[in-house]
Amino acid sequence: MNTMLDMTNEIGIWLSAELDEVSSVMSGHLQNKHPEVNSVCSKLAAYKGKMLRPSLLLLSWRATADCAVVPKNVVTAAAVVELIHLATLVHDDILDEADIRRGAQTINSLCGNEAAVILGDYLLSSAFHLCSTIKHVELNILLGEVTNTLCAGELVQLSHRNDVDLSLDSYFQIINDKTASLIAASCEMGSLLGGGDGGIVSVLRNFGGSVGKAFQIRDDLLDLLAQKIDIGKPAGRDLEKGKLTLPVIAMLAKNPDLKPAVLRAISNHDRDALRKLLLDNGSISSALHEIKKLVDGAVAGVRGEISNDSSEQLCNLAAQLKQGI
Amino acid sequence: MNTMLDMTNEIGIWLSAELDEVSSVMSGHLQNKHPEVNSVCSKLAAYKGKMLRPSLLLLSWRATADCAVVPKNVVTAAAVVELIHLATLVHDDILDEADIRRGAQTINSLCGNEAAVILGDYLLSSAFHLCSTIKHVELNILLGEVTNTLCAGELVQLSHRNDVDLSLDSYFQIINDKTASLIAASCEMGSLLGGGDGGIVSVLRNFGGSVGKAFQIRDDLLDLLAQKIDIGKPAGRDLEKGKLTLPVIAMLAKNPDLKPAVLRAISNHDRDALRKLLLDNGSISSALHEIKKLVDGAVAGVRGEISNDSSEQLCNLAAQLKQGI
Repeated sequence: MNTMLDMTNEIGIWLSAELDEVSSVMSGHLQNKHPEVNSVCSKLAAYKGKMLRPSLLLLSWRATADCAVVPKNVVTAAAVVELIHLATLVHDDILDEADIRRGAQTINSLCGNEAAVILGDYLLSSAFHLCSTIKHVELNILLGEVTNTLCAGELVQLSHRNDVDLSLDSYFQIINDKTASLIAASCEMGSLLGGGDGGIVSVLRNFGGSVGKAFQIRDDLLDLLAQKIDIGKPAGRDLEKGKLTLPVIAMLAKNPDLKPAVLRAISNHDRDALRKLLLDNGSISSALHEIKKLVDGAVAGVRGEISNDSSEQLCNLAAQLKQGI
Repeated sequence: MNTMLDMTNEIGIWLSAELDEVSSVMSGHLQNKHPEVNSVCSKLAAYKGKMLRPSLLLLSWRATADCAVVPKNVVTAAAVVELIHLATLVHDDILDEADIRRGAQTINSLCGNEAAVILGDYLLSSAFHLCSTIKHVELNILLGEVTNTLCAGELVQLSHRNDVDLSLDSYFQIINDKTASLIAASCEMGSLLGGGDGGIVSVLRNFGGSVGKAFQIRDDLLDLLAQKIDIGKPAGRDLEKGKLTLPVIAMLAKNPDLKPAVLRAISNHDRDALRKLLLDNGSISSALHEIKKLVDGAVAGVRGEISNDSSEQLCNLAAQLKQGI
């Protein structure tokens, strides 16, 4: 899997320095007077990823404010969205019974499910606390709405495990809620703090929503197609957990006769059989086409409204979702 | 266990009507567009308890504002603290592997640990979202500080399971963080919204802190002494989970020679043996004395500063913690 963020050009280097600041705000804010808390938090180092959400927030801010010196509040907001994301990863790993993430042991595997439940709560709580310190009431309300949506998405997904009757609409609603909503909110927060007017904020929020859905479809495809070594975590986990993803749902919508074969593949955890069905039915390439459509729409939306170095960097970042599968 | 809230007098009836409003704000706010979410939330009905935190918030507001018509914001804040409390109950029941709470099945037992993890997150998120709608920045910051403290308390407690060397200071810090902090914050929020000056707010926060510690010591004693039928949940859970509580820690501080016997009782889950050790050493009555000391201090603190019907009701409520064991 490529890293999705090209840090070699001028804006890339700007972003890289700002992301270091974001990381330092995060670790500073998690610092606790109790060594027992710091000890569990120190295990989070392995969860550090590509920081997609803070990157989108920072670039959305810069595309709107058109200014290079990022104010403290914007760095803080970027740390907030990443803390929320970390909280979802820590709790997701409990739900998925995952032992490995990004090539390292998960918190639940290192410290037990109990510590992982509380650590996820601590991250969620720290994110809200940090957001409150910005003293921007609308931002707090927006964050609360997004985290409600994330949780609702996870609960709906959970209730549809092994559900071969899940509709495409429901699937898109789930990935919007559990993944795209926070990515859309990252773009929205960045542009709000950049002083963007309602139109610009809405364009960037929609951009984030489409990128977020494309990102989740891509992640689901990797789980279906990749080997562990490629994605830093065990592949095939969705199948084991009975999570139906786009290629499977789209295939069943066209060929309901395949439901028994899909159910068999799920109950046998037989990823090869499922993959063969999907390839035979052209469902993988349909899903790749859906990613392309979402990314192209997101890019066109931004280019129709904003044109500067940072908005181009947002578009480049989105375009990278079309590569590497 | 007595219900701790006497609803038969004039203020009790006032409180009872306001608490109904609080419940209705809570259930209205949890209402979601996805039936899958509402279905899990409906299981929370069995978690409804005596609403200690909203009661303290409402009475602290009334003791400060000295007015009977409670504004919407105060009811909202009371719903916020109860939602946080519910979130901690749902996640605690996962940590404690508890099947029964208040005589009914727990969320983890009814819907599985996965749904319980997400529901707890949803409650936490809903509480923050609801708090943000009050548009009182300091309240949001206070709430974030308290939830950070709650989580830290839980993490520290978890890291001291089966620790017969846990000091009395550490025990008091744990119960302050995991329990008393939210109860203190409930009193603080009520008095802040009631327009109390710094001195009054601080007196009521300290009252809540002492009441909260007394409440937790009492809860720990009931777990040690009561039968399931008395407390609506299995007793002896602390022992099974290796949680050392006040009578045990105080006994070991005086008689370190008893550590092997206590460790044996823990590993055998032998509550009778532990109880006998504690009774022989006068440790149960010492813990009861500690409750009395905390309650008397809390009451004296309030009576030294405020004198009206609601502050007396707060004192009566605290005094009930000394009864019924």
